[in-house]
Amino acid sequence: MTIADRWLLPDGMEEVLPPQARQIEVLRRELLDLFHSWGYDLVFPPPAEYLESLLTGSGNDLDLQTFKVTDRNSGRLMGIAADITPQVARMDAHSMQRQGPARFCYCANVLRTKSDTMLGSRSPMQVGAELFGHAGVESDTEILGLMLSALATAGAEKIHLDIGHVGIYKALLQEAGLDADQEKQLFNAILHKVYSEVDQIAARYIVSEPVRSMISRLVRLSGSSEILAQAQLELADAPASVKEALDSVEQTAKIIQHQYPNVEINFDLAELRGYNYHTGMVFAAYIPGYAHAIAQGGRYDETGKVFGRARPATGFSADLKILAKLLQKTDPVSGIFVPAGFSTDEELLSTIRALRSEGTRVVVGLPEQDVGALEMGCDSELVRKEDGQWVVEPSNRIF
Amino acid sequence: MTIADRWLLPDGMEEVLPPQARQIEVLRRELLDLFHSWGYDLVFPPPAEYLESLLTGSGNDLDLQTFKVTDRNSGRLMGIAADITPQVARMDAHSMQRQGPARFCYCANVLRTKSDTMLGSRSPMQVGAELFGHAGVESDTEILGLMLSALATAGAEKIHLDIGHVGIYKALLQEAGLDADQEKQLFNAILHKVYSEVDQIAARYIVSEPVRSMISRLVRLSGSSEILAQAQLELADAPASVKEALDSVEQTAKIIQHQYPNVEINFDLAELRGYNYHTGMVFAAYIPGYAHAIAQGGRYDETGKVFGRARPATGFSADLKILAKLLQKTDPVSGIFVPAGFSTDEELLSTIRALRSEGTRVVVGLPEQDVGALEMGCDSELVRKEDGQWVVEPSNRIF
Repeated sequence: MTIADRWLLPDGMEEVLPPQARQIEVLRRELLDLFHSWGYDLVFPPPAEYLESLLTGSGNDLDLQTFKVTDRNSGRLMGIAADITPQVARMDAHSMQRQGPARFCYCANVLRTKSDTMLGSRSPMQVGAELFGHAGVESDTEILGLMLSALATAGAEKIHLDIGHVGIYKALLQEAGLDADQEKQLFNAILHKVYSEVDQIAARYIVSEPVRSMISRLVRLSGSSEILAQAQLELADAPASVKEALDSVEQTAKIIQHQYPNVEINFDLAELRGYNYHTGMVFAAYIPGYAHAIAQGGRYDETGKVFGRARPATGFSADLKILAKLLQKTDPVSGIFVPAGFSTDEELLSTIRALRSEGTRVVVGLPEQDVGALEMGCDSELVRKEDGQWVVEPSNRIF
Repeated sequence: MTIADRWLLPDGMEEVLPPQARQIEVLRRELLDLFHSWGYDLVFPPPAEYLESLLTGSGNDLDLQTFKVTDRNSGRLMGIAADITPQVARMDAHSMQRQGPARFCYCANVLRTKSDTMLGSRSPMQVGAELFGHAGVESDTEILGLMLSALATAGAEKIHLDIGHVGIYKALLQEAGLDADQEKQLFNAILHKVYSEVDQIAARYIVSEPVRSMISRLVRLSGSSEILAQAQLELADAPASVKEALDSVEQTAKIIQHQYPNVEINFDLAELRGYNYHTGMVFAAYIPGYAHAIAQGGRYDETGKVFGRARPATGFSADLKILAKLLQKTDPVSGIFVPAGFSTDEELLSTIRALRSEGTRVVVGLPEQDVGALEMGCDSELVRKEDGQWVVEPSNRIF
């Protein structure tokens, strides 16, 4: 075993060093305080749970992403949390059992066997908020508003918001009469937005009109607000739930645009991200210069059912490490350096205590230390004057 | 699969619900800010690393406590972090490579296959600080002082501090001429403090005097400061390093007692906790009413060697969840409730924005919500007066 073998980190398992760690911590606090101010109560889910609890309602994707270990106490399989949302759904359904709406927020490390993106992280710091117990535009708007406020808090100036609604495709699919394999082919074609293939599959397998042509039209319904009116026309023959879904998307977008006028809203009615998991409106936020969503979420009603309590639910999450990196806040390190060798000087000790209790960073030198104040991140030093008094002076090395 | 099977959590994998989670968060910030004010830079180690990195220098105990998973990218074994200290040692040795002393702090979840204590946690929130690059009383004192300050910050009033030094037993053992099996027998007898068995094993296997009787005496050297003088007499024939160790323990205790006069200090020179890992002074803090240490640490020089850089090191850690539970701080939840149905009222929206930006918790009601302000943790409500103005009024339900 070479030394390099020992310090090499696995792909996507990042460490965060100073000063970035402090910047992340500052942002973490700002976001959790924001969530608190909106009435979202902090929870800490366990970092590992029995696999059945973790994978509930999440579909196959999360299963593949979850590291499994055997619990030596019970002999059962546990998973290391790869997504916090199902954990919070379990807490709402079983641990809390609140009457009426319940709001929770969290910030926790998750681990994934593979990254969502090329060269991406397998150890995101997932930060997010979930709202349970209400189905409708008001809760969708609240979560969307909180997500946009969180991004603004993190420093995002130009936000691009994509809104979709998986209920529309689900409703059309019910009318399409496809078997599981055909459904999968169609799903993949839509997911990868290969329109010609969608048309071919629809033509080959879907007998009934107008479902066939509505599916073909749906995948093209992507753009700014005018496509909502177009969708109302083109999907007019769809089940009633499609009209309701379109109405709720329109209403939500209107309120959000009013409250966050600088946000650019786009619609993609064939967005199937998290299709197995989501049940209604889905959304993702983008910023210039980053190809992936920096925050995302949506409605996932009924997830709590397997824990004994079906509840409407919506929420969003983001990777705190990515937010901090992209929207970098600076938190310049400064401090006061104290020379070594005065550990019994009462005057000095009480000066240090007072400074630290005000939050000032005071670094005490150690004997034979070969580096000075600046190397210790200190821009000033405590210096003893002839009268025995200790005073703070700028560090006398050149920057 | 029954519903109960799904929500049951594995032993020792706790979730933290409101309001405890917020209390933990408050304490987390206070401790990290304290560490920052002492010059300790925050780091976030990766939640999983290759096994060889994690287990370095830690002995067998950590290996047994570490959950292992296969990295599908490299095919190599990874471990889920069970102790943050070796990770920070790797960061100091390789990632940072600072000249001179380096100070780091952290707060991170760890996972363990089994608990340290009966019915204990297998998912502690490890919070701690590490000081690299200096060997001697000054750095031992600094870490001990920081640990005591952290406990005081957490609200501990009566702290009992145990100090030991594994170097003393190590030095005597070198003179004892035992084989591996005999050494293990002796180690177990000392670890469990069965004095008669220690005497028997020493009598049976240790030929040379005075080593034999010094071992027998060592295990009884436990008590308040007078035992240090007694140790100097009874271990007078030991190698020179024993006298140095005793001197450093005495000096450290004197400084700490001076700086923290309310702390009760005891000495246990045969304390072998973390023996495979530690190299010098070791210490643990106790509070009334809790049988286990609430914080502990010690010196572990040279751990960084396998990462290419041997450095003196000392540090301490604690479980934030236990600290928060034992030294419970209250953080009463309050807030202002806003009735549903006014989402387009500009006056109201800007009032809400202003309140939230000051940190006030404002919970907006949702249509058909069947619970009121108090159930949402709000002690007051925003009420619209006849002139259209919104004013804050105490919640008019009875507590």
